[in-house]
Amino acid sequence: MSTVGNSTNIFWQECPVGRAERQKLLNQKGCVLWITGLSGSGKSTLACTVGRELHSKGKLSYILDGDNLRHGLNRDLGFKAEDRTENIRRVGEVAKLFADAGLICIASLISPYRKDRDACRAMLPDANFIEVFMNMPLQLCEERDAKGLYKLARAGKIKGFTGIDDPYEPPLNCEIEIQQKDGVCPSPSDMAGEVVTYLGEKGFLQYS
Amino acid sequence: MSTVGNSTNIFWQECPVGRAERQKLLNQKGCVLWITGLSGSGKSTLACTVGRELHSKGKLSYILDGDNLRHGLNRDLGFKAEDRTENIRRVGEVAKLFADAGLICIASLISPYRKDRDACRAMLPDANFIEVFMNMPLQLCEERDAKGLYKLARAGKIKGFTGIDDPYEPPLNCEIEIQQKDGVCPSPSDMAGEVVTYLGEKGFLQYS
Repeated sequence: MSTVGNSTNIFWQECPVGRAERQKLLNQKGCVLWITGLSGSGKSTLACTVGRELHSKGKLSYILDGDNLRHGLNRDLGFKAEDRTENIRRVGEVAKLFADAGLICIASLISPYRKDRDACRAMLPDANFIEVFMNMPLQLCEERDAKGLYKLARAGKIKGFTGIDDPYEPPLNCEIEIQQKDGVCPSPSDMAGEVVTYLGEKGFLQYS
Repeated sequence: MSTVGNSTNIFWQECPVGRAERQKLLNQKGCVLWITGLSGSGKSTLACTVGRELHSKGKLSYILDGDNLRHGLNRDLGFKAEDRTENIRRVGEVAKLFADAGLICIASLISPYRKDRDACRAMLPDANFIEVFMNMPLQLCEERDAKGLYKLARAGKIKGFTGIDDPYEPPLNCEIEIQQKDGVCPSPSDMAGEVVTYLGEKGFLQYS
């Protein structure tokens, strides 16, 4: 019903297939996993590993990757403050649509500002927005630096780089926090296991 | 893989779950049904009825409704020419994501300009973009006028209304055309049947 609620077309058609019916078909509940953290903190790794774990359980997920979307939906946006905010807003709106479609939508973006993440959270019923904070030390992320972005940022060749000359605001009340234990990073499989266990416990992996 | 192809994160992770795996899970193939036509031509009716028919066959679809998206993703856009184009572009990009997720994405928008629709078509492999033209006479749409929009447009109270003082450019090579037969509109069920039959014949309703 929500998909035609504001239609200006002439026939008011009660749309008999809604979120509940899609969730029942998929035997899962739609939600948004929002993975936030510094560049190099392992967001994409976690996103892919969670996607694989879910698929092995017969569950349908879809990854919205911040960088990839900048080649499509968000290709008109740059990196100034208002563009970053609009970038996150659109990803939030699209993630909401995927959750409404019944999917477990995995959004993977640095999303450094708390207000932008909270605006996305506010688009959904609170329980359906699961914020996953990749709480890895800047030093570790910078050491990894596979793409050399930190090096460029330190050299002043990239301006406004999160963690270097632009702030990362950690979540205050995230649902899941991934961090080192005794100075050791959890394996991708362990990180993903924590997330998938959470989804199971909260009832997202079945319909009823 | 495509979901991490442009990631700037440090770990290059081959994402083992891609479009093919999702399509296999769903036993269908992702595509975009793009329903275009005048206000009052029955786009929403067709979208809902196709969604219901597909659901009854155990297939997962999702409707992107042009008006509804203007309350969310496209709420920053108005109705001037460049905003209309951007509105359609974003819906096209999102539809492409849904098709990549494995869903049968049903986009329902007036989308009056050929170049805007063709730009959406160009985002996908051609076979995966199925343009459905609701070819109903303006007179019929105007007689229906349940929301009174045509009346307002005729009175000059809405400017740039498609079919009245803004053109509708019919598709030149659409995949499906819905029209009256002997002056009678096909029933929603008949219209939807034609679309679902097309999807079946083209192999979208099974994976292999």
